[in-house]
Amino acid sequence: MNNAAASRLDELLLADYDYTLDYRGVSGKRIAQRLYELSKIGLTDENGSYRIGFSAEEKEAKVLVAKWMTEAGLQVKQDEAGNIIGRLAGKENELPSILSGSHVDSVPNGGHFDGPLGVLAALEVVEAWRETGFKPMHPYEVIIFSDEEGARFNGGLTGSRAMTGDIDVENQLSLVDSQGSNFQTVIENNGLTLDTFFQAKRDLSKIKAYVEVHIEQGKRLEKENLPVGIVTGIAGPSWLKIILSGEAGHAGNTPMDDRKDALVAAGELIAAIPALPRQVSSTAVATVGKIHVHPNGVNVIPGSVELFVDIRDIYEDKVDELVSLTIKKAAAISESHGIRFTYEQTLKVAPMLVQDEMKELLEQSLQKMSIKPYYLPSGAGHDAMVLGRHLPSAMIFARSRKGISHNPAEWTTLSDCVQSVHLLKNMIEKLDEN
Amino acid sequence: MNNAAASRLDELLLADYDYTLDYRGVSGKRIAQRLYELSKIGLTDENGSYRIGFSAEEKEAKVLVAKWMTEAGLQVKQDEAGNIIGRLAGKENELPSILSGSHVDSVPNGGHFDGPLGVLAALEVVEAWRETGFKPMHPYEVIIFSDEEGARFNGGLTGSRAMTGDIDVENQLSLVDSQGSNFQTVIENNGLTLDTFFQAKRDLSKIKAYVEVHIEQGKRLEKENLPVGIVTGIAGPSWLKIILSGEAGHAGNTPMDDRKDALVAAGELIAAIPALPRQVSSTAVATVGKIHVHPNGVNVIPGSVELFVDIRDIYEDKVDELVSLTIKKAAAISESHGIRFTYEQTLKVAPMLVQDEMKELLEQSLQKMSIKPYYLPSGAGHDAMVLGRHLPSAMIFARSRKGISHNPAEWTTLSDCVQSVHLLKNMIEKLDEN
Repeated sequence: MNNAAASRLDELLLADYDYTLDYRGVSGKRIAQRLYELSKIGLTDENGSYRIGFSAEEKEAKVLVAKWMTEAGLQVKQDEAGNIIGRLAGKENELPSILSGSHVDSVPNGGHFDGPLGVLAALEVVEAWRETGFKPMHPYEVIIFSDEEGARFNGGLTGSRAMTGDIDVENQLSLVDSQGSNFQTVIENNGLTLDTFFQAKRDLSKIKAYVEVHIEQGKRLEKENLPVGIVTGIAGPSWLKIILSGEAGHAGNTPMDDRKDALVAAGELIAAIPALPRQVSSTAVATVGKIHVHPNGVNVIPGSVELFVDIRDIYEDKVDELVSLTIKKAAAISESHGIRFTYEQTLKVAPMLVQDEMKELLEQSLQKMSIKPYYLPSGAGHDAMVLGRHLPSAMIFARSRKGISHNPAEWTTLSDCVQSVHLLKNMIEKLDEN
Repeated sequence: MNNAAASRLDELLLADYDYTLDYRGVSGKRIAQRLYELSKIGLTDENGSYRIGFSAEEKEAKVLVAKWMTEAGLQVKQDEAGNIIGRLAGKENELPSILSGSHVDSVPNGGHFDGPLGVLAALEVVEAWRETGFKPMHPYEVIIFSDEEGARFNGGLTGSRAMTGDIDVENQLSLVDSQGSNFQTVIENNGLTLDTFFQAKRDLSKIKAYVEVHIEQGKRLEKENLPVGIVTGIAGPSWLKIILSGEAGHAGNTPMDDRKDALVAAGELIAAIPALPRQVSSTAVATVGKIHVHPNGVNVIPGSVELFVDIRDIYEDKVDELVSLTIKKAAAISESHGIRFTYEQTLKVAPMLVQDEMKELLEQSLQKMSIKPYYLPSGAGHDAMVLGRHLPSAMIFARSRKGISHNPAEWTTLSDCVQSVHLLKNMIEKLDEN
């Protein structure tokens, strides 16, 4: 979309599509057309997507997909949190359901694959079964979760958390968006009611498993030259706020050996942090993305610096270890500079580790497709992270071009999209057999 | 003033004054009372001083000092740039004048010594001569320079630059203050006219020397336990703007070994800079005071960082050397991180080196007072920097408590103020003899 803005998304996708991937009822063209139809809802001047959670645009996208669900023979309903659920009866309808889906909301000026691909892949499994006359033993549900990105309230994963009951009601009611509207107003404008919202929580014993397709939003698959990969776990972020307090002073009148420069200490810490993750795990990452310097004047020695460290891994104990290492490093550097230091953990989201059984089923499914199984962690949060804390859950990543995401230039080739559908379909069928 | 806001400045100053310093006509009480009278003009709620250049408050302070000048027997006039000049005829009135003074404007919520001490010290020399019946050979002028701090237009040293002709007229006319008033409007509101402003330039061959007393605004004299010191030179600032450009990315989805993190490179540079000044000179300093990170989001790898390095020394070649070293260091660090780097020198003010003859006269003057001569550079700019580029100029620093300046807590004891007056008086008398 980025370098051919005048063209239609579906035409661009089909231009280099490998039609031999149209087998066992899966249609690349149908997926391309649906991605295109969705892309028109909330299209920005820069050809990006603007479909904030609980907006009219997100709702319009949900309604469109619900129409396709109905046409595919699913029984469609909206739950109390606005999640759209399209159910296909199983041959043994009392068995627990197998779920697949994702979201259709976006960040402001986001891409057209983050979310929609997972929803359309789940729906394409049903379309393919229809074409081949296959009927699963278990009920199968295609789901659109509300407000995954959290662009409105800086929260996110709202629909999936409502479904699993992982919402702190008081905290949720206190949220206010950038327009000054609180959570109640926002959902009521979206046709939902606060009285019933939290009744979206389901009896999770009636769900067998959840599988989600999503674009990778990283460059690992591109480097490995693979269309799809198996997610080993989802790394929930832990955020450390560190404040280094030295002594402000005149940049001209304070000799170098008589300074307590908070930014020099912060610089040393920022430069030291990239070496820490490998001390705990090969999948761990740590990033200083945000920093505030006081007073931030060209000719003033910085008196204090506030910085945030984003720490992630798929193993909870490794996250804790890396948080400790970071604090220790900050303490040692502060001491050597004679400055004060405080810290606060402002966010801690537990990582979700994919069960070995689920990974094995995915690996068997990939072998059927003659694609080398490649395992990679997810650094970003997804609805599968929420469901994975309660029931067997897995994720399939589709290759992202240059790793670009949350951006109009986000891109996954149609061939890679379709390979992710085949892998999902094989996986659902394996789950259905077991 | 800071910890006894309810008390009068003069009472606080006199409380710990060493009255044995009242000799040869110099009066601590007079100086204390005058500092107090000035402090009342533009006094802020925090007991600071608010007398921006070319404001009604600066003018009121000038008028008050002009009255004292007249009472002391000086011929007082205001020049075209608003500088106040109080002249004492010499016995040989055709000889070139000896000048001393400073300024009475302040930064917003500044202190009560930065500027006023230098003006009152210059005037106290006249008062002392009156009491002892001394008459100099050379004419002697006490000067209040306009708008030294430059708080209004981010410029400063306006009065002294007008007097030496170091003002770029076009640039000066383009200045606009935070209220949206341009330079012409501001000076006209102050009773000056644009037509004549630049006629303030004097025939500098008729000035023999300039000597300025000022508070140190640093902690060196306090550390040496000395009341006053001899300034070796004034370090004009050179500012380097450095932009490091890497690659933004998701903090969770980008492995540590696949990053081009602009802030990590910036951190390394900021931590490396403090070791550079000592490679060129013992008086050089370098400071990163201001930094902007893009996009500055907690979970985004910084794509680019803009930072400013303030570099100073009293030796111009050493400043240039340190600028080069800094650029080389930035280049090496950028290369090792695989990121791009650009730089721009946004400011370059030539330093002013005090002549050996002037320093020797000050040292002889100090010996008379049995005070150990101590030499120190000035990191901040002063009117003496401007005059020093054209004629023999010297500066005397008086000890600052804790080095605090540009702040209501700025403090110099009355004993130290008076010692600076004695040193100035000895120096002026030596210049008069030679």
